[in-house]
Amino acid sequence: MTAVNDRTDNGAELTNEEIFAAHEGGKLGVEVTAPLSTARDLSIAYTPGVAQVSRAIASDPTLVDRYTWTQRLVAVVSDGTAVLGLGDIGPRASLPVMEGKSALFKTFAGLDSIPLVLDTTDVDEIVETLVRLRPSFGAVNLEDISAPRCFELERRVSEALDCPVMHDDQHGTAVVVLAALKNAARVTNRELSSLRVVISGAGAAGVACAKILHAAGVGEIVVLDSRGIISAGRDGLTPIKEELAEFTNPRGITGGQAEALNGADVVIGVSVGQLPEELVATMADGAIVFALSNPDPEIHPEVAKKHASVVATGRSDFPNQINNVLAFPGIFKGALDVGARKITDGMKVAAAEAIAAVAADDLSADYIVPSPLDPRVAPEVSAAVAKAARAESVARA
Amino acid sequence: MTAVNDRTDNGAELTNEEIFAAHEGGKLGVEVTAPLSTARDLSIAYTPGVAQVSRAIASDPTLVDRYTWTQRLVAVVSDGTAVLGLGDIGPRASLPVMEGKSALFKTFAGLDSIPLVLDTTDVDEIVETLVRLRPSFGAVNLEDISAPRCFELERRVSEALDCPVMHDDQHGTAVVVLAALKNAARVTNRELSSLRVVISGAGAAGVACAKILHAAGVGEIVVLDSRGIISAGRDGLTPIKEELAEFTNPRGITGGQAEALNGADVVIGVSVGQLPEELVATMADGAIVFALSNPDPEIHPEVAKKHASVVATGRSDFPNQINNVLAFPGIFKGALDVGARKITDGMKVAAAEAIAAVAADDLSADYIVPSPLDPRVAPEVSAAVAKAARAESVARA
Repeated sequence: MTAVNDRTDNGAELTNEEIFAAHEGGKLGVEVTAPLSTARDLSIAYTPGVAQVSRAIASDPTLVDRYTWTQRLVAVVSDGTAVLGLGDIGPRASLPVMEGKSALFKTFAGLDSIPLVLDTTDVDEIVETLVRLRPSFGAVNLEDISAPRCFELERRVSEALDCPVMHDDQHGTAVVVLAALKNAARVTNRELSSLRVVISGAGAAGVACAKILHAAGVGEIVVLDSRGIISAGRDGLTPIKEELAEFTNPRGITGGQAEALNGADVVIGVSVGQLPEELVATMADGAIVFALSNPDPEIHPEVAKKHASVVATGRSDFPNQINNVLAFPGIFKGALDVGARKITDGMKVAAAEAIAAVAADDLSADYIVPSPLDPRVAPEVSAAVAKAARAESVARA
Repeated sequence: MTAVNDRTDNGAELTNEEIFAAHEGGKLGVEVTAPLSTARDLSIAYTPGVAQVSRAIASDPTLVDRYTWTQRLVAVVSDGTAVLGLGDIGPRASLPVMEGKSALFKTFAGLDSIPLVLDTTDVDEIVETLVRLRPSFGAVNLEDISAPRCFELERRVSEALDCPVMHDDQHGTAVVVLAALKNAARVTNRELSSLRVVISGAGAAGVACAKILHAAGVGEIVVLDSRGIISAGRDGLTPIKEELAEFTNPRGITGGQAEALNGADVVIGVSVGQLPEELVATMADGAIVFALSNPDPEIHPEVAKKHASVVATGRSDFPNQINNVLAFPGIFKGALDVGARKITDGMKVAAAEAIAAVAADDLSADYIVPSPLDPRVAPEVSAAVAKAARAESVARA
């Protein structure tokens, strides 16, 4: 595992020159972990010796976890339909992002992973492809897949494969948001159960945030999409928004941002929309604002700070950076370590608690989550997730 | 590239204990080749910097070769239907072999590769899966796929993907056999064009040997299967054997091993059958015997030597080891280096000539091919294959 220094030397702006130079030839390689320098090594790692290992796995398929790399291998899978803020740029153009993801898995959790980018956007075909490839890996990280396809795809892949599957754009973000919200509530002396939370955006991240905050016992959640507040009676709801309407917006309010934000304790921006200052000003005293759109937050953090007690963004140049890298390496590591058959809500909540706990000793309005480079995070998350998997009886090891 | 010492320290027999210990946790890992130790590194290799690279590839898809790892990445693909001599043991049990193959690619040619083992044996489904995964890799090494499916599969994958595709059990063996035969002919002062060659076995390796020897101008080729000599008139020939019948057995002989071997200059055993000593004794003076079945050659090399001038096997504990590792790392390296759209017969023949040339200076009856660990081989093969690809206009770079 590569050591990571917590040096936030972001002072000088990135240049295209240094970015492209760092990507020359790609960012990944394969390393050989068994010795292979003599004829004897060759006879062990390849023929004839390897035949003994193949024969053993043929007799007892569970040995594949022990004698191959699959039980520490994550497939990072994308169809390139929702890449960063760039949209549907296709599988080839998504590859540098997937290689970056693999690099983060290795650096933070010591996990191996391979980018698998698919020349199809058909959900049936993606599921079918992963089912056929199932013996090749130990877990699936779905990445940069557009909504609402991502919801059906994640559900169907999880059902079809008996291994950890997670769409990181949904749950990685949601886990870190929950961790941050727990600590923001602590800083402002409130309980999750008493909070009125508005989520601005009903895409991959917004839906997952709503679900995990509900599972964690947040008092009231109201979700906004481009048409306004999602409520049970609204016309033309998609299936996923109908699901949201069932457990959010208990008071059945209607309208738009103004109606939602008025008196709310928390707003979580996970869309490209704006959060106007005059509406943030109508929130409850001690408001919490997470403006997570990247690279341009829904409201500038310094403006938000005029009306809020705690402000977080997705950016590294302001306090409280909400970054998925705090979650996914440890979640997959913990799940694979215990041979989990899936990633449950309980495991995600445990991950959020572990992230929150790392920051707990030094908590302040400007420090509600650890730095993305904090090396304590992944091991803590991994241990908590493994424990939760065992408690929920989804662990095999 | 890991250095390999040419130490044939095979003295002591391999123990199961050391074999399984070497396979604990698998034999591969992923390494990160871009720096990732500071916040700035993270901003370059992942968001926001990586977006520039993704955007560039979206505008010009050819840049994927330059800014991702795909142009040095081989997918090692198997369905586990013909694994070593173990037969159809399935994809999971084949994985240690595929990891070994990936280890050899890295060690000998510096190429990265990922094992993709498939939970389907349906040719249509395997082709379809690889087409969907096409943006993820730069070349396909098909491995341990049973005959006759392997012939159709290789042809269809080659047609469907615009990249190097090779079924190594066919062509890796064939290339090294051709290299060995060239040098065996030199040692015994004969020309390929004057040789009468018998191939015992019409599976993956036998068919490919027949084709490459024909392409290289061998005078007469006769192929034996379990029913005897393959000839144009024989009942019930499969399509691939009908193809063989078209360019082999020009004298139209019929019968079995006895009729085939009588007066032959060369016999190449690539099956599990036996080569009886009394029949080898009927071959021409200065006979050449390649008994390649592993781990038990069709005839013991010391017995064969009583009747033959040159004897080769697949084993490391006798002279003249015919081992695919002499061929496939350099073939794929050369093909990927020049962006070849496919692997042609000319590229395979060029590889064979390069392998033969490495041994040329020290040629003897007991040294017709280099050692599998000779570090000179892969670079020479790679250069020859790249040159041939350019000459045949299948190179893009």
